[in-house]
Amino acid sequence: MTINIRVIAEAAVAASRTLATLSTGAKNALLQDVARRVDAAREAIFAANAIDMSAARAAGLATAKLRRLEVTPASLAQLIEGLHQIAALPDPVGQVTSEMTRPNGLRVRRVRTSLGVIAMIFEARPLVTLDAFALCFKSGNACILKGGKEAAQTAAVLANFAHESLLAHNLPQAAITVANDWSRENVAELIALEGLIDLAIPRGGPDLINFVRAHAKVPCIFHAAGVCHVFIDAAADAAMAISIVVNGKTSAPATCNATECVLVHASAAARVLPALAGALSQANVVIHADERARALMPNAHPATHADWGREYLDLEIAVRVVDSLEDALAHIARYSSDHTEAIVTSDQVAAERFVAGVRSSCTVVNASTRFNDGFQLGLGAEVGISTSRLHAYGPMGLGELTTTRFVVEGSGQIR
Amino acid sequence: MTINIRVIAEAAVAASRTLATLSTGAKNALLQDVARRVDAAREAIFAANAIDMSAARAAGLATAKLRRLEVTPASLAQLIEGLHQIAALPDPVGQVTSEMTRPNGLRVRRVRTSLGVIAMIFEARPLVTLDAFALCFKSGNACILKGGKEAAQTAAVLANFAHESLLAHNLPQAAITVANDWSRENVAELIALEGLIDLAIPRGGPDLINFVRAHAKVPCIFHAAGVCHVFIDAAADAAMAISIVVNGKTSAPATCNATECVLVHASAAARVLPALAGALSQANVVIHADERARALMPNAHPATHADWGREYLDLEIAVRVVDSLEDALAHIARYSSDHTEAIVTSDQVAAERFVAGVRSSCTVVNASTRFNDGFQLGLGAEVGISTSRLHAYGPMGLGELTTTRFVVEGSGQIR
Repeated sequence: MTINIRVIAEAAVAASRTLATLSTGAKNALLQDVARRVDAAREAIFAANAIDMSAARAAGLATAKLRRLEVTPASLAQLIEGLHQIAALPDPVGQVTSEMTRPNGLRVRRVRTSLGVIAMIFEARPLVTLDAFALCFKSGNACILKGGKEAAQTAAVLANFAHESLLAHNLPQAAITVANDWSRENVAELIALEGLIDLAIPRGGPDLINFVRAHAKVPCIFHAAGVCHVFIDAAADAAMAISIVVNGKTSAPATCNATECVLVHASAAARVLPALAGALSQANVVIHADERARALMPNAHPATHADWGREYLDLEIAVRVVDSLEDALAHIARYSSDHTEAIVTSDQVAAERFVAGVRSSCTVVNASTRFNDGFQLGLGAEVGISTSRLHAYGPMGLGELTTTRFVVEGSGQIR
Repeated sequence: MTINIRVIAEAAVAASRTLATLSTGAKNALLQDVARRVDAAREAIFAANAIDMSAARAAGLATAKLRRLEVTPASLAQLIEGLHQIAALPDPVGQVTSEMTRPNGLRVRRVRTSLGVIAMIFEARPLVTLDAFALCFKSGNACILKGGKEAAQTAAVLANFAHESLLAHNLPQAAITVANDWSRENVAELIALEGLIDLAIPRGGPDLINFVRAHAKVPCIFHAAGVCHVFIDAAADAAMAISIVVNGKTSAPATCNATECVLVHASAAARVLPALAGALSQANVVIHADERARALMPNAHPATHADWGREYLDLEIAVRVVDSLEDALAHIARYSSDHTEAIVTSDQVAAERFVAGVRSSCTVVNASTRFNDGFQLGLGAEVGISTSRLHAYGPMGLGELTTTRFVVEGSGQIR
């Protein structure tokens, strides 16, 4: 099939002009309508997802990918709740972020405005389709969503609700384009369309990220690996540390905010590691530990160099003993993917030093790395978690899908 | 000469780690010291600039470029004032941009943090060297500054003040690297250094912009052409309109916020254009007008298609009669470079429609396009005016040279 990518992009640009000036009420009405349509058709979504899942199983997809592909009653409920939440969130477009009157009488405002057309390239998680559409739509942007081919059935059913709703509200269909069936060449063409595509957001593994890096001519925000560390400080409460590590690793092992590596202060190792080893084993987590940690974790495999900086995305974890907070910071500086790092400590000075010494998108004190998430940090749903420092760093919600422009009002001022 | 670009970039990264955690007081003391050194050595700067200027004249540099190259008593005074202003501005690093406590007790803050290493590639204006350094330094970033070869003498003298001052304050010299003598190949290598260079900011003509677009692997913010329009509405005050256009064109014709094109509502043409023609001629401005405008501006040359969307950067201007505000918006949508557009009108509804219909980085009502400038809009000095919608749009001051990261504090919360 030949797809004319430029024609699709130009339609999205035209749609984005309509969305940029749409009223908040009109946007919210559409989002609530989409939520209602999804809510009323849960069985159709599960049926489509079952087709994708059985094809994926037949194709031998890895466990982590199967987990991402599966739509569960809980994940669908969260999507529907998310759509309502986004409708309820304040509209960023038109928000005045700063305002002043200059000495010469000029009134200067900074006003939030939409970006235009956003291209998202992501892997198997199909519910992202409507999450991403809702955030782009509410922030006044059109979107082109290239999800995984293996999620094509589920994505098509979900997109259909959005298209029905756009039609019912007399809004352009090109507000959302679902492109799960596009080839890599199609995607390469799309992300080279300077002046038509305002932002590309790749979310996925190294292959996808490298592909986008190689071909993109438009601005990109990367949602890359999450190699999240937990540092158990000398002054850590052992029970809290174990709870935070087990939760960080096991509550959703295939997500980017899962804990992948534990660094333990040498003076806490003896009182934390044996119990941690037991708790992780009970949760079926395979441990890769350095020599000092293995002395206290008899069930651990020896860690190799490849275990540092590794994103397992599965029930595996790396453990290393370090001699100081500074050594933990040095390990993180070298192996972190700038996503999320946590410290467990009752020492306020150590917590502050850790927060100052880490540059990741989210630094957590005494809580699970799993909290680096748009819902959990109060942004509503998110299009992902940026590990790019430019424009948006960390979870990207509505505000992060806009920019600001200046509006200046005078009475004839010249320079 | 062989330059090891990676070694220079790595030194800048190391310096940026020091700058990222430097106290506000230490940063301000250094900037004030640099300002004092510049103030005490004005003659040395003029002498170096005279060498650059005479070489540039001998090489036949265009008038607009000569204007950019020249350091005047006024521009030097503005630089010194700018350095003191930047020292006096609030430090963006560490600023908390939002703060909330989640229902589960997590305290979530967004905190401003520096970007790291910023590469600026710009053309002849040599005072940018210290302006840019001061903004990067105050925002906790190291900078590598590639100005024009023709400004090399002036830039070297200016950079020397910064290096003396860094030495006196026991700070790393690599906080600023002046690279005016680098080749294009050196620059291409620099802007491909992913992971070392956090941001590239090209400021200049189409050749420079295209060069950076072709070679950059690191995130870029473009400071490209300023094709600024003034729309004289049906309800415009004629005297105000003429004043705003003449000021916009003539007060600094070589700058990106200069007015390049005037769109006149047909019903205002007869009462505005004859007097505008006289005022522009008196200021030695060459007029390129469409047929309807020429009927009222006998001294105008016929405009060709090439005059629409053209950045003259000199005493030349395009004039076109349009039938409505919507036609003005359509012209701007087609030919604007997203920099600055102004309307002159006493009709509030027309002003609001214009502001809503324009997407440029700055929209001005009843004032000169020349106000799109970091000083004028209250940011202090600027590193330039971004025409990129991502990260920063419009003048970039201190805040625009930082990003935000999340800091989350809990008491053992898990998900």
